[in-house]
Amino acid sequence: MSDTNWLDQVKWDKDGLAPVIAQDIKTGSILMLAWANRDALAATQAEKRAVYWSRSRQQLWRKGEESGNIQQLHDIYLDCDNDAICYVVDQIGGVACHTGRPNCFFQRLESGEDKTGPAWRVSSEIVKSPDQMYRNPKNS
Amino acid sequence: MSDTNWLDQVKWDKDGLAPVIAQDIKTGSILMLAWANRDALAATQAEKRAVYWSRSRQQLWRKGEESGNIQQLHDIYLDCDNDAICYVVDQIGGVACHTGRPNCFFQRLESGEDKTGPAWRVSSEIVKSPDQMYRNPKNS
Repeated sequence: MSDTNWLDQVKWDKDGLAPVIAQDIKTGSILMLAWANRDALAATQAEKRAVYWSRSRQQLWRKGEESGNIQQLHDIYLDCDNDAICYVVDQIGGVACHTGRPNCFFQRLESGEDKTGPAWRVSSEIVKSPDQMYRNPKNS
Repeated sequence: MSDTNWLDQVKWDKDGLAPVIAQDIKTGSILMLAWANRDALAATQAEKRAVYWSRSRQQLWRKGEESGNIQQLHDIYLDCDNDAICYVVDQIGGVACHTGRPNCFFQRLESGEDKTGPAWRVSSEIVKSPDQMYRNPKNS
């Protein structure tokens, strides 16, 4: 029986979750922010691929299980407060976002004119059509 | 009166918060994960420096207000689901973590021997003593 002390050291929130940042090992870019519970983190370590907890579907989410865009695991980091996690991964297919973009942080705040104020603007292009990736485009 | 529509577009959680990743513009490294509420995000945009909501102190947290290690803002990104934020910043002093390390994600999971299983190991060194940075080392 393996020692699970490392899983106990994470300060899971009241829902049993911790935020997870996925970072691309090749580019250093931030691919996405998702959530893990204890089982997801254990599976990530055991399977050497990123596994999350889908809050919308309330089930384990093996990233890329439908799209093929899996995230091969290189390292897992825990922050100083033990309540945030970082998966350093190799993003297969070069697409992390369900919209078909390389990463999920593609809405950049632009200052705008004096009269209009700041606004979020799409700052990266779709590199792969979601129709090509999913039967149901909401799954990623 | 400025348009605050961009603040309304963020899907704040039930506590009025969203997770914020701070990324270093020079190195691409992930400095920390913290939280913002509406006021923190508005202040970040207005003041061009990273402002968070301290969940422990229940107040706005202008990063570096005591240590001097402020985070000068370059860009703000919102993710595809509108519920996670990224501040791209210039980390003054080169230290984001209250422990005196360059960033907060310094505990790396190591596989360990067969008998011991995985364990978190400190993977970066303290570059600045917390005693030099804070009157109270819990503030950063």
